[in-house]
Amino acid sequence: MTKTSVSRRGLGALLGLGAAAAALPAGAHDPAAEAGPVKAPKHPFTTTEAFDASKVPAYKGKHDKIYAHIDAHQAEHVENLRRWVRQRSISAQNDGVLEMAKLVESDLKALGFQETAIVPSKGHPGVWGWFDAGAKKTLVVYMMYDVQPIEPTGWKVDAFAGDLVDDPKLGQVLMARGATNQKGPERAFLNAVASILAVKKKLPVNLMIMAEGEEELGSPNYPEIIGQYEDRLKTADGVMFPMNSQTPAGAVSMPMGVKGIWYVELIAQGGPHGGPKEAEVHGSLKSILDSPAWRLAHALASLTTVDGNTCLVPGFYDSVRAPSAEEQRLANGVLPQWLAEADARKDALKVDRWIGGMTAEETLYENLFNPSFNIDGLVSGYTGVGTKTILPHRAVAKVDVRMVPNQTPQEMMAKFRAHLDANGFTDIQISQLSGYPPAQTSVDAPLVRAAIGTFNKYGVTPTVLPRLAGSAPYYVFTDRLKLPLVTAGLGHGAAQHAPNEYMVIKPRAGSKVAGLAEVEKFYVDLLYALAEAK
Amino acid sequence: MTKTSVSRRGLGALLGLGAAAAALPAGAHDPAAEAGPVKAPKHPFTTTEAFDASKVPAYKGKHDKIYAHIDAHQAEHVENLRRWVRQRSISAQNDGVLEMAKLVESDLKALGFQETAIVPSKGHPGVWGWFDAGAKKTLVVYMMYDVQPIEPTGWKVDAFAGDLVDDPKLGQVLMARGATNQKGPERAFLNAVASILAVKKKLPVNLMIMAEGEEELGSPNYPEIIGQYEDRLKTADGVMFPMNSQTPAGAVSMPMGVKGIWYVELIAQGGPHGGPKEAEVHGSLKSILDSPAWRLAHALASLTTVDGNTCLVPGFYDSVRAPSAEEQRLANGVLPQWLAEADARKDALKVDRWIGGMTAEETLYENLFNPSFNIDGLVSGYTGVGTKTILPHRAVAKVDVRMVPNQTPQEMMAKFRAHLDANGFTDIQISQLSGYPPAQTSVDAPLVRAAIGTFNKYGVTPTVLPRLAGSAPYYVFTDRLKLPLVTAGLGHGAAQHAPNEYMVIKPRAGSKVAGLAEVEKFYVDLLYALAEAK
Repeated sequence: MTKTSVSRRGLGALLGLGAAAAALPAGAHDPAAEAGPVKAPKHPFTTTEAFDASKVPAYKGKHDKIYAHIDAHQAEHVENLRRWVRQRSISAQNDGVLEMAKLVESDLKALGFQETAIVPSKGHPGVWGWFDAGAKKTLVVYMMYDVQPIEPTGWKVDAFAGDLVDDPKLGQVLMARGATNQKGPERAFLNAVASILAVKKKLPVNLMIMAEGEEELGSPNYPEIIGQYEDRLKTADGVMFPMNSQTPAGAVSMPMGVKGIWYVELIAQGGPHGGPKEAEVHGSLKSILDSPAWRLAHALASLTTVDGNTCLVPGFYDSVRAPSAEEQRLANGVLPQWLAEADARKDALKVDRWIGGMTAEETLYENLFNPSFNIDGLVSGYTGVGTKTILPHRAVAKVDVRMVPNQTPQEMMAKFRAHLDANGFTDIQISQLSGYPPAQTSVDAPLVRAAIGTFNKYGVTPTVLPRLAGSAPYYVFTDRLKLPLVTAGLGHGAAQHAPNEYMVIKPRAGSKVAGLAEVEKFYVDLLYALAEAK
Repeated sequence: MTKTSVSRRGLGALLGLGAAAAALPAGAHDPAAEAGPVKAPKHPFTTTEAFDASKVPAYKGKHDKIYAHIDAHQAEHVENLRRWVRQRSISAQNDGVLEMAKLVESDLKALGFQETAIVPSKGHPGVWGWFDAGAKKTLVVYMMYDVQPIEPTGWKVDAFAGDLVDDPKLGQVLMARGATNQKGPERAFLNAVASILAVKKKLPVNLMIMAEGEEELGSPNYPEIIGQYEDRLKTADGVMFPMNSQTPAGAVSMPMGVKGIWYVELIAQGGPHGGPKEAEVHGSLKSILDSPAWRLAHALASLTTVDGNTCLVPGFYDSVRAPSAEEQRLANGVLPQWLAEADARKDALKVDRWIGGMTAEETLYENLFNPSFNIDGLVSGYTGVGTKTILPHRAVAKVDVRMVPNQTPQEMMAKFRAHLDANGFTDIQISQLSGYPPAQTSVDAPLVRAAIGTFNKYGVTPTVLPRLAGSAPYYVFTDRLKLPLVTAGLGHGAAQHAPNEYMVIKPRAGSKVAGLAEVEKFYVDLLYALAEAK
């Protein structure tokens, strides 16, 4: 799934930290310096102003009766989370998905949503819910009800048992697939809704739930699902994605945008241009046969400078727009923290240097405001241990472009195809696996100011990032529905897409991480703050 | 294993035909034509003479009593083959290997070899046997007693049961792992020896058996095993590798040489030159991190012309010697058959054209007399279905050079390293997995003439190839021991390294394939022919 990094908080949100693997006997050469990389175009900043989230007024509302109801019903609320994680919903394996959709719908009905529906699509269905509170404002709540497959080893508990585990560092956690990604925070949000209704009999804002069951597959059919409610969704005031946003130290970051992604396979295969068409042949036949693998290597090499850091596809950078004044202020605001964390970031990533020998400051702007072009995978022929001598009939590179405004997948496809054709690589196919444009929300949107103000109320001033280098298909909200989007929430969880995924339920004493009750109170306040926001 | 093609007979021996796989929606472009490939140096022939194996006098010897003994003992002889294939000896999995070595040694002892030994090495042991017949001539018999692992699916019988199966096209076959590669022909040879001894009480030549248990691993320790008997082996008159050399149509080809091989991994990994050193990181980090996969693509592209068909490493072709007059005569001899089979060869390989648009005639010379440079495998990062966005810390290309005289692995390593360094690719490691020089035997060697003469006696005029494009470590015999080497034998088997491997035991009526009894008689005659050869 392309937006892994979205689910990680802090400035570390920009980073996808992997597990350690085999070490390398290292050389001492700097190929990029020799290669003379073409620098990507830079847009000088026009402002030195810095956004400071602590200047956004803290939300002042008090909802003590609702908070008390939440506290009094914690046992029941925890059970609601456990009920959700116990329902398998592995989209990649079609395991329990429809049952989970029905569970979500039935919970919405039980809460009093006037309208609910299982929304058909070409893939797994969506779930729709409409709660008409007679309020002026309407919030769309984006939910995903599917989860990643289970890792074959490493789980300490049954991934679908909903076990509560005492962790010596964190306190009591719910350990289960989906605990934090994303059933825990989603059901916590509905617990908050339940407590508001129990105490006040009405909600401060109308709600539209628009859930999907294919987030872990890259949301291939979410646009189709959205389409069935598009006119109504467009009338809303914003979109919220419930999320455990705190790091283990309690810090929160809020990204105002994501890069888009164009993820394709570049495929070389034998054909009229030469090379075996249907199956590998013996390696000694290279003497008389063309090789798709060699063609792929040359096609790839034609796409970037020799250091691999600048894309040579004509026009690749043309539609990159200069950072807006707001984006510049946000970047200026996070720069000090970015610099302070630079060495730790190198350690965490196990790297000795930044791209092209950039300074840490340059990497912030590169990360935020320039597209990247990455090889995610290469595969051809024999990939096991030792020797096998074959001439593969097929070679594939999985590559992705992370796009910034105003780049588009359609533009990438056209420009890459033209480049390959112009360089004689008409034999290289491009097969798109995923593609959607970037998304951006203004920090001045009432929903965003309400979220920051609510965080401030809880003493957690968020780090507001202009953008994540990671990708998520939020364009459906920001571009198509023209709505601001926030991913927000107190709480902490981790190990998404990994064994022993968890969400903190009752933090240990002294922790700055919110427990479930506080997570729910945050959502209560957020709904009231949005109702009052201007 | 690098010499798969050696085990395949006919002119198809030059080809490694793979199973059909997915088809390709094909374009109509010829990239090589556009790319303007640098042509490899060609050496014009200085003779139009053509070698004709049918002109070698057929062996005239008659050994009717021995033949009768073979016929009378077929049941016992077949059981000997079954006994060998029933003993597992999967070298890659250390499964039964030592037991097989002991079985070989014990069979040699039972035959009357005066000296036998399990020969220790850093890997699986060799087996030595010395039969002093008091004869003038001595034949070294190379044997491999290991087999490939078993394919998980596709076997119609227990691969180690030694089943005799009736095939409607072939007749009765022994179907088992090792049936033809190589236990069947090897034990058939020993059956022949047994019958000679039973009838004549002595052998026409002295025998040195020098078996290894790591052929399927690329013979990494065979040089060490040879070394323990080197002085004695050098006194021999030649080396014979028993082989079922017939195609299903009964034809035989004899290669007088093999190309050498230099099989290495080119490895790009993060380090001081940039990129993550220990583990993959999130793909969005490409914006600020160097990528080993991009570096590998550029390093590969620096190695060949854009069509992938000419190596650009300086000096790569320098030590390629012109074909000798003998090699030219052999090439001229096989050209008519090569041309006649060219279309069928394209069909079998599922290719639309030869390398660089060559003519069929050019491909013969390219195949025989020029080195090739192949990508056997590419692997980096995510290679599964769909999308996963990672920046891999490591990328590996498995590549091989098939060398012709006088190229050497040492030369390749030096020249490739120098090229990569000169082009700024000091960050690319070269890890050698296999490497040995080519090997060549003269068609005029008494052992070779004896083998051709014996084939001619049986009415099977062999196609004598100057060389295989495939590789085998025969240099240990031809270069180190300075002995001629033949791979010879009647008989037919197939599906080496595949399910349902077989050797024909009793061919159906009308078949031109020799059955086991005739295979054994051939070996009897070959030993006498060698004894009489000048």
